[in-house]
Amino acid sequence: MQALKERILKDGKYLGNGILKVDGFINHQVDPVLMDACGQELARRFANVGAQRILTAEISGIAPAIMTAKYLNLPVVYARKTKPVTMADTVYLTLAQSHTKGKMVELIVSPEYLPRGERILIIDDFLASGHTIQGLVRLVDAAGATLVGIGTLIEKSFEGGRDALAHLNIPVESLAPITRMEEGIIEFA
Amino acid sequence: MQALKERILKDGKYLGNGILKVDGFINHQVDPVLMDACGQELARRFANVGAQRILTAEISGIAPAIMTAKYLNLPVVYARKTKPVTMADTVYLTLAQSHTKGKMVELIVSPEYLPRGERILIIDDFLASGHTIQGLVRLVDAAGATLVGIGTLIEKSFEGGRDALAHLNIPVESLAPITRMEEGIIEFA
Repeated sequence: MQALKERILKDGKYLGNGILKVDGFINHQVDPVLMDACGQELARRFANVGAQRILTAEISGIAPAIMTAKYLNLPVVYARKTKPVTMADTVYLTLAQSHTKGKMVELIVSPEYLPRGERILIIDDFLASGHTIQGLVRLVDAAGATLVGIGTLIEKSFEGGRDALAHLNIPVESLAPITRMEEGIIEFA
Repeated sequence: MQALKERILKDGKYLGNGILKVDGFINHQVDPVLMDACGQELARRFANVGAQRILTAEISGIAPAIMTAKYLNLPVVYARKTKPVTMADTVYLTLAQSHTKGKMVELIVSPEYLPRGERILIIDDFLASGHTIQGLVRLVDAAGATLVGIGTLIEKSFEGGRDALAHLNIPVESLAPITRMEEGIIEFA
């Protein structure tokens, strides 16, 4: 998606070590107009998969997921990383390696919002190594729901995340697939 | 706002101990259409305060803030509770008591997204005791920015949050002010 790619080239910063800083419009500050356009485009790409609910992970997945959900008119559930007091006692919980946090994080979903047999679309900000998204896939499995697609804003194609999801045989879409990233260089597919 | 009040009466659950569970449409699962309508209404109420940026707190503030920001065409910054590797080394950080987590949490904003002299609108999901929002107010102060308004989805009017903010002399708006909450009873102002 051209608008997102241009914004990454303009405001994204490669920090080294495979880390792309997009704090100015996705991860700390959010540009709601760009995010709305991204949601609209993701909704277009997944218009025909028959999704009944969108699953994402807090924190950075919430903005793209909610904008996509708005266009598909679906509820969006975000896997929580800590269990709040309002959550049911029995939950689905899995562990995932966080690249930016440098540690394992919990992903927790309440069964009441991930019903057995439903068709689930996963939306997140990044597809990189794919650890977080694989965690979300395990939650969908645990719930006995059916995964129908995975969509992200940015993909770091050189980190193997897409390959690790290939066995799922579902559409995987990213709006800005980055094929090469070095000091001063960001290239898209 | 009628649609939000009706949804609270339909799907909100009083858990005792002052805690209202709205996990089905705000805090774990989000209804994007309702949230969009809430954002539109908050944007309407703050249309004339001259805000240049919206500040919220992760996690539950993100959805209402981004929808409000979309209608006001403003960037939204969310105070983070842990410092990611992409964040600047020097930050604004304050501590706030979390009611639902039962502990102190950090609220962290990078100075690059909270510039001195800017007019800031705070948006969050709940105004209850007001601890989180007072934390956000301290961040605005620390940045040398100007607070121009505070808007929330739900207010628990009996927990004193609004009184604690009165000295700021700025508009404080909530879309669903709850005046009384007991087993089976939720009353609005």
